[in-house]
Amino acid sequence: MAHILILGGDGYIGWPVAMHFSALGYSVTVVDNYLRREQCRRLNLDFLYPVPLLPQRTALWRTASGQNIGYAIADLADPENMRALFCQEGYEKLCSTPWPGQPVAVLHFAEQPSAPFSQLDYRTTDLTVTNNLRVTTSLLCAIRDLSPETQIVHIGTMGEYGTPNIDIEEGWIEIEHKGRKDKFLFPRQASSVYHTTKIMDTDLMWFFVRAYGLAVTDLMQGPVYGIDTAETALDSRLRPFFNYDDQFGTVLNRFIVQAAAGYPLTVYGKGGQTRGFINIIDTLQCVEAAVRHPANAGELRVFNQITETFSVAELAALVRQAGSRAGIEVAVQHVPNPRTEAEEHYYNPVYRALQDLGVKPHPLDDATLDKMLAVALRNRHSIRPETIMSQQR
Amino acid sequence: MAHILILGGDGYIGWPVAMHFSALGYSVTVVDNYLRREQCRRLNLDFLYPVPLLPQRTALWRTASGQNIGYAIADLADPENMRALFCQEGYEKLCSTPWPGQPVAVLHFAEQPSAPFSQLDYRTTDLTVTNNLRVTTSLLCAIRDLSPETQIVHIGTMGEYGTPNIDIEEGWIEIEHKGRKDKFLFPRQASSVYHTTKIMDTDLMWFFVRAYGLAVTDLMQGPVYGIDTAETALDSRLRPFFNYDDQFGTVLNRFIVQAAAGYPLTVYGKGGQTRGFINIIDTLQCVEAAVRHPANAGELRVFNQITETFSVAELAALVRQAGSRAGIEVAVQHVPNPRTEAEEHYYNPVYRALQDLGVKPHPLDDATLDKMLAVALRNRHSIRPETIMSQQR
Repeated sequence: MAHILILGGDGYIGWPVAMHFSALGYSVTVVDNYLRREQCRRLNLDFLYPVPLLPQRTALWRTASGQNIGYAIADLADPENMRALFCQEGYEKLCSTPWPGQPVAVLHFAEQPSAPFSQLDYRTTDLTVTNNLRVTTSLLCAIRDLSPETQIVHIGTMGEYGTPNIDIEEGWIEIEHKGRKDKFLFPRQASSVYHTTKIMDTDLMWFFVRAYGLAVTDLMQGPVYGIDTAETALDSRLRPFFNYDDQFGTVLNRFIVQAAAGYPLTVYGKGGQTRGFINIIDTLQCVEAAVRHPANAGELRVFNQITETFSVAELAALVRQAGSRAGIEVAVQHVPNPRTEAEEHYYNPVYRALQDLGVKPHPLDDATLDKMLAVALRNRHSIRPETIMSQQR
Repeated sequence: MAHILILGGDGYIGWPVAMHFSALGYSVTVVDNYLRREQCRRLNLDFLYPVPLLPQRTALWRTASGQNIGYAIADLADPENMRALFCQEGYEKLCSTPWPGQPVAVLHFAEQPSAPFSQLDYRTTDLTVTNNLRVTTSLLCAIRDLSPETQIVHIGTMGEYGTPNIDIEEGWIEIEHKGRKDKFLFPRQASSVYHTTKIMDTDLMWFFVRAYGLAVTDLMQGPVYGIDTAETALDSRLRPFFNYDDQFGTVLNRFIVQAAAGYPLTVYGKGGQTRGFINIIDTLQCVEAAVRHPANAGELRVFNQITETFSVAELAALVRQAGSRAGIEVAVQHVPNPRTEAEEHYYNPVYRALQDLGVKPHPLDDATLDKMLAVALRNRHSIRPETIMSQQR
């Protein structure tokens, strides 16, 4: 049974991806140090609903599906922990399951993923840079030294590109300059420390790919939304954790909860910021496509992982309509933009490659919005409105 | 008296720069954690001649020049140490001199600078990435929070650009793509982990410049050679440390010592690798020019800091001729290239901006080579040939 390691497997993306591959028949092990949960506790932020820890989550999944997901609680910034995952003795000391052999793929989601958190203060900036870069470095060295046949699938972000005044290609661009030509990584310039760490990941992966022939796919993902996947339908306690605060919540998820709580939708600035969005069920498809069609040795393959683009103001209007269908009055409030980003800009990304590999996109529709809103309304009693704009308290 | 902080002030570049600014009448404080000395000890590598520690170096300088250089021995990857430098109480706890007020400039040389060392094993890779990125992050946050008027001058490397098939501009390039245009950082793709950390520095500095209006000059320096400056003429014990091993030595410095030791010059591969080189006395001029003509707030200014280009084979031929002038037979040996780099390639960098600011370049000449060789010959007794190719023992 082909084995897959999922770094950051407790996360909003990591856990649904883990169940998805387990359901497909892969042997799956998730590794996490609960960094997100720890930081949420420290900042006094809650998930929309309770989310059990990995021992309970994997037990619930076993009961629901009959499949076993192994787990380890470990800090992968420490290279010794990372390396342990790639040898039998080390693996069995760290993990809850017997050594499954070397993985066919490592999915690297083990990064601090919040832009605002990465800039709360100098300590969270240091934490973000150190954690994200050390985990990536440790992984690249471990694969080179211990399991060079294993492909790496990394979650990057569309935010690496920023909002350039030219069309955004899928990772690469040919530049003609003074009569000569060469191919380069598409220019990257992000609007947060977090997004910048993903650029730095790209730089580091590109070096390891060239120097040591690793096989890497970098998925430039847009903001993800959604709660349910095929697997969470088995037991709602299998849902991914869901932040609605201004630190760890993504924009559409936050708007849905704000609507359910009777809190005006907090549009940052003019709301003309346009991004590529993706439903979590499409994320599962994209990661699966990347694993089934691996990059070649010595290839850094980059896919733009989005389904469609919206401006923030357009998303607010859609959530307002969903509220109206549910009989809720939803207000929209333009608040001062806490981010460093253009509020009106050109935005034209290419995103063909994943669909060419067979991904069937699910554009945002009324049914999806209505289901998300229904979950938020069922959990309305636990929403803490004071955490919605926690940094403006 | 304008104050300048020099991070990495014990280093091959840092110490001569410190004396240079001190001689110009600036108040100077150097900070270092002796990382290089520690790693040389660990790897059993020596300098060409003994180099006193910072308390002794600054005392020798005081005797020779009548000027005071303050010093602190501290790890600047720790943000608390970095921040201490920008407030009176913290400064006076760490440093040997009274609080001089906020610096007009911070010169950031506090990075692990060796390409081979950055890839010795996974531990040195982790050390390089962690040290270099944490120091840069700590500095950027400290300047933003505590001393936003202070300009940053960072030593990058020409190696960030790699060897693209197009002309290398000074940091920036305008790209026209599908009928639209924008200006971007010139594409960067380096050939070592160390050089890649400098790319990552650039990414991070560029974000802080845009988000917080910092003023940053990034000096893309080529390999430096040389021993003596105007200040070392006062007392030879003021010379910078000088590595001739394969870990921390730069190519021309190593060839000079190899010639003095009767060791064949170790040309990696074909020797067609072409780079931009600079004499350490031109480095002093360039850093001075950057400080005297600061970047604007919100500007990341990039200068290519080289004097001329040579291939490695050309340098070997020049050292062979210098040997011949000194009555020494110098052999050249092509050894398997331990680096991941093209051995024949296009290379055409632009380097005008620093000369436009008044830097008078000193091209490599016979007199310079002969003086370097004379120093190496005087210290021939202490050369340990087994460290010249230490990783092939």
